[in-house]
Amino acid sequence: MANSKFEYVKHFEQSNATHLLPNTYIVIRIDGRSFHRFTAVHEFTKPNDIRALSLMNAAAKAVFHDLGGEVVSIAYGVSDEFSFILRKECNLFERREAKLVTTVVSIFTAYYVSLWAEYFPDKPLQRPLPTFDGRAVCYPSIENVRDYLSWRQADCHINNLYNTTFWALIQQGGMTAQEAEKELMGTLSKDKNEILFSRFGINYNNEEEIFRKGSIIYRNYAAVPDSTAETEEKAGAETAPTTTVTVPAETQKGKSRSQQKREAKKLAKAEVVVEHVDIIKDTFWETRPWIIHWTLGRPNEYAGTSQ
Amino acid sequence: MANSKFEYVKHFEQSNATHLLPNTYIVIRIDGRSFHRFTAVHEFTKPNDIRALSLMNAAAKAVFHDLGGEVVSIAYGVSDEFSFILRKECNLFERREAKLVTTVVSIFTAYYVSLWAEYFPDKPLQRPLPTFDGRAVCYPSIENVRDYLSWRQADCHINNLYNTTFWALIQQGGMTAQEAEKELMGTLSKDKNEILFSRFGINYNNEEEIFRKGSIIYRNYAAVPDSTAETEEKAGAETAPTTTVTVPAETQKGKSRSQQKREAKKLAKAEVVVEHVDIIKDTFWETRPWIIHWTLGRPNEYAGTSQ
Amino acid sequence: MANSKFEYVKHFEQSNATHLLPNTYIVIRIDGRSFHRFTAVHEFTKPNDIRALSLMNAAAKAVFHDLGGEVVSIAYGVSDEFSFILRKECNLFERREAKLVTTVVSIFTAYYVSLWAEYFPDKPLQRPLPTFDGRAVCYPSIENVRDYLSWRQADCHINNLYNTTFWALIQQGGMTAQEAEKELMGTLSKDKNEILFSRFGINYNNEEEIFRKGSIIYRNYAAVPDSTAETEEKAGAETAPTTTVTVPAETQKGKSRSQQKREAKKLAKAEVVVEHVDIIKDTFWETRPWIIHWTLGRPNEYAGTSQ
Amino acid sequence: MANSKFEYVKHFEQSNATHLLPNTYIVIRIDGRSFHRFTAVHEFTKPNDIRALSLMNAAAKAVFHDLGGEVVSIAYGVSDEFSFILRKECNLFERREAKLVTTVVSIFTAYYVSLWAEYFPDKPLQRPLPTFDGRAVCYPSIENVRDYLSWRQADCHINNLYNTTFWALIQQGGMTAQEAEKELMGTLSKDKNEILFSRFGINYNNEEEIFRKGSIIYRNYAAVPDSTAETEEKAGAETAPTTTVTVPAETQKGKSRSQQKREAKKLAKAEVVVEHVDIIKDTFWETRPWIIHWTLGRPNEYAGTSQ
Repeated sequence: MANSKFEYVKHFEQSNATHLLPNTYIVIRIDGRSFHRFTAVHEFTKPNDIRALSLMNAAAKAVFHDLGGEVVSIAYGVSDEFSFILRKECNLFERREAKLVTTVVSIFTAYYVSLWAEYFPDKPLQRPLPTFDGRAVCYPSIENVRDYLSWRQADCHINNLYNTTFWALIQQGGMTAQEAEKELMGTLSKDKNEILFSRFGINYNNEEEIFRKGSIIYRNYAAVPDSTAETEEKAGAETAPTTTVTVPAETQKGKSRSQQKREAKKLAKAEVVVEHVDIIKDTFWETRPWIIHWTLGRPNEYAGTSQ
Repeated sequence: MANSKFEYVKHFEQSNATHLLPNTYIVIRIDGRSFHRFTAVHEFTKPNDIRALSLMNAAAKAVFHDLGGEVVSIAYGVSDEFSFILRKECNLFERREAKLVTTVVSIFTAYYVSLWAEYFPDKPLQRPLPTFDGRAVCYPSIENVRDYLSWRQADCHINNLYNTTFWALIQQGGMTAQEAEKELMGTLSKDKNEILFSRFGINYNNEEEIFRKGSIIYRNYAAVPDSTAETEEKAGAETAPTTTVTVPAETQKGKSRSQQKREAKKLAKAEVVVEHVDIIKDTFWETRPWIIHWTLGRPNEYAGTSQ
Repeated sequence: MANSKFEYVKHFEQSNATHLLPNTYIVIRIDGRSFHRFTAVHEFTKPNDIRALSLMNAAAKAVFHDLGGEVVSIAYGVSDEFSFILRKECNLFERREAKLVTTVVSIFTAYYVSLWAEYFPDKPLQRPLPTFDGRAVCYPSIENVRDYLSWRQADCHINNLYNTTFWALIQQGGMTAQEAEKELMGTLSKDKNEILFSRFGINYNNEEEIFRKGSIIYRNYAAVPDSTAETEEKAGAETAPTTTVTVPAETQKGKSRSQQKREAKKLAKAEVVVEHVDIIKDTFWETRPWIIHWTLGRPNEYAGTSQ
Repeated sequence: MANSKFEYVKHFEQSNATHLLPNTYIVIRIDGRSFHRFTAVHEFTKPNDIRALSLMNAAAKAVFHDLGGEVVSIAYGVSDEFSFILRKECNLFERREAKLVTTVVSIFTAYYVSLWAEYFPDKPLQRPLPTFDGRAVCYPSIENVRDYLSWRQADCHINNLYNTTFWALIQQGGMTAQEAEKELMGTLSKDKNEILFSRFGINYNNEEEIFRKGSIIYRNYAAVPDSTAETEEKAGAETAPTTTVTVPAETQKGKSRSQQKREAKKLAKAEVVVEHVDIIKDTFWETRPWIIHWTLGRPNEYAGTSQ
């Protein structure tokens, strides 16, 4: 075959073909490329554009649906970035880094572009089109994953408080960007809260949850019929109310294989919901133990014999 | 700052942050995900759909334009895959693998989705949307890069001859897919040529160049005004005629830094063209030495002092 | 400086400078290179040479001492291989893979060569000198690490039963190597036990523990004075009796930082002991919880805020 | 088999199993660990100890011999470090990084320890024993490899001029280390040369070549009988005179496979020599083209079809 003398070049692929460590949580974080310019060209509302955030969330939900029920356990979005947490038993693409990260980026990009007109009906997409880069990071423990998400949500708070004050000084206070920047230099959180309240009558805590907390996306296992869970209203829930689950995280250990399979099926049917709640404290995780406490779906071949 | 106790999680990024080896050619190859199903749902013409190939080429040209004049030196596309060859002096994103590969995949995806309606006006995009995965491979020498491209073009030939015969047996010969597959089992190239000619009156060599050779995309440096190059008609050129260049590849070595800068500027202005010609033999490369023989654009800090 | 124009070459180091994932157990396994030939030239006793195994253990103990009290938590040796388990909070050399693995290999080699004459006084070392290669693997959980060690100890058992029978057939049964190999083809464990017992009067279970179980090396924290631990005789202990510890693994979680520091100091003083006991069952680990259940020494910056 | 349920742990090895990029030069550099303390304990002569450097060279020659005729093309040593350049066609251990680097470190360590008594007959080795760490770096071009070696040799010069002056100020000038350090702060090369000459009557250029140039080790292909090369005296050659070779580097390209095989055999027979000459200028390389200009030994499967 004429091709055979060239096929040696495939061998070079081996040198950059990272397999992500098994039995760890994979975080894939995507970021908008040159979004400073993109948001200016498309006249995003400042400091936050609800249309843009809703579009981000819609694209993120598409990642859940495209990858299937058991791959992504939770996602967190803020501004032009989104983090997808893959289950530690995930073996998609044999955990090949490039395949995983490019696939998530490609799905996200495709839906962002495709759904644009739905969220910005009066703003045709201009070139260069919106694009995203991505990276994968592994975390070995639940504590690490929760700290990762806490890091992003704390960042959301810090940035949003700054931006809210910065744009109030400009939009309501008549300052230039330079003046606002100078005004905020060296200020603490309480100083910004004070500026907002005393000068502009804004109580920061009354700002929209989606701006202050970011967006949390996951499958609402507890709301699937036939569950014994009771419904409970939850502040900040955008799509569906979250329900408390009586089964604590610890009971997962004694579960039989067939029970885990039933749970996996139920999870795959669960609706993908978007909420804007605190994920730093324990409550969120204790009431939704299936997100990271449970092992669901395919058996984790790499978990160890005594688990 | 409330965020600081969580920031340790950034440190984990270091373990999967590959920097591609400097002074090597970077090949980024993207592939359509689940395109077998996608092409069926969207009723692509078999064995080749000229609308789909033109859309692929348009998305690939967008990668050239988005990344700027000096990053991609040449790209080769066939079917639902595209390979982008980055200059060996490329230092974009400090050669971070994840950034490079996700950026190319995201640009390609964005334009593929955005331009769809232009190429398939009567076929609205259905879900799941078309997406692509990607990978990066480094090649140290010009010989390796040319062999990589020869490998893809030889593959194009082998697959296209098979597919052309396979679909002739079905579409004109009335066979089922199983029957056609069985008929072709164990056949050589000359057998397939014979089947095409004797049964269906098809001379394979008269098939469209784009189907037989794939698509080659590059910046047509030689056609930029003020060049001394003479224009020459070239079979298979889709966009612009390629011109011969009198300066042979070897003269690059003695070039001054200012001459290289002039050439880089000229290259950035050069039109991105699509051709369907042989890139296995030497002719293509000898008549377009700027593609891989010349070092253009930013100085290659990693080339070595004696180059 | 004349050197500066060459210094760009340092930049290439970045492409192969892996940092092992934080908060995971690092296993460094070393293997004798070409030891088949080496053992023949130096006339090692078959199937096991107690001098050679003792030399391996002495070299492994040197790795504990050279790297200091808190780096290696346990090591397991069999034949010409040794596995060193580094604590998951280990941050030596910032977890750079090449530094860690070459350092362990170099220490082991240096002591193996240097101590040779002590264990083989009548066999001068011949060239090529004994050398070892090594590799590093990360494991995220205690279960994974225990399974790794169980894998090596089960392998020890399988190989040693085979070798014991193989050499009995040759040394006592007068067979050639080919005949012995053929005799054992397809036999199960019980068949080999039966051959040993019925033909040669050997009860495999009475063979030396060091041959059947391999060598386990760790710091005997419980035997350090001022501990409340009670001494207990343990079969297979070569150096010092291991003592039971009343504090179960779970109590580690509530420990204060100062208590952990005290424990780390105590651990650093603890004697490095060699045993030949079962490490597949739970008993070994439950009675020595400091080996992998406790976090000792330097604080694990990467463990997560809620641990 | 009892072992099978544990064998999944092998799968984790895949995540840290780097294969070095084919068709590149591999540089393995080893460094003495804690040699500052080691040289003090063993009372090395300052600024240079000829016994120690000779021992380093002997250990480095052992690496050439142990790895066989075609793996290492040249090595460069200075102080307690040594760099080994592997041929770009090297496929030893399938270019697995950990195997390559640990093997070189282990061989070097074994011979350093074993040969110690020969070079330091009156200084028994004390613990901790001398050990070395190592790393691997790939370089795609001859220019990069030469610049790497130039970097090390320029560093040798800079350090040795400093150390020679520093120790002259102490040993002959009666200064303390602090005083000497202060004296040299901010001085240029010519200042140090002046200090040496005017205060101590030392002409730096008359210092030993081994101190000023470091040690270059390679196989002296040209000196193998049946070569047409003529012998020529060369300053700084320790072992064997190097001979000029009339065949220029460029003729390599037209060589037949059988001629290359003859040359490879001849190279394997060639004596490993140690020299202390300039390797920054072209002369060294032009007169010994087999070192990096020739492809010898096993065919380079990854060089490309047109080479």
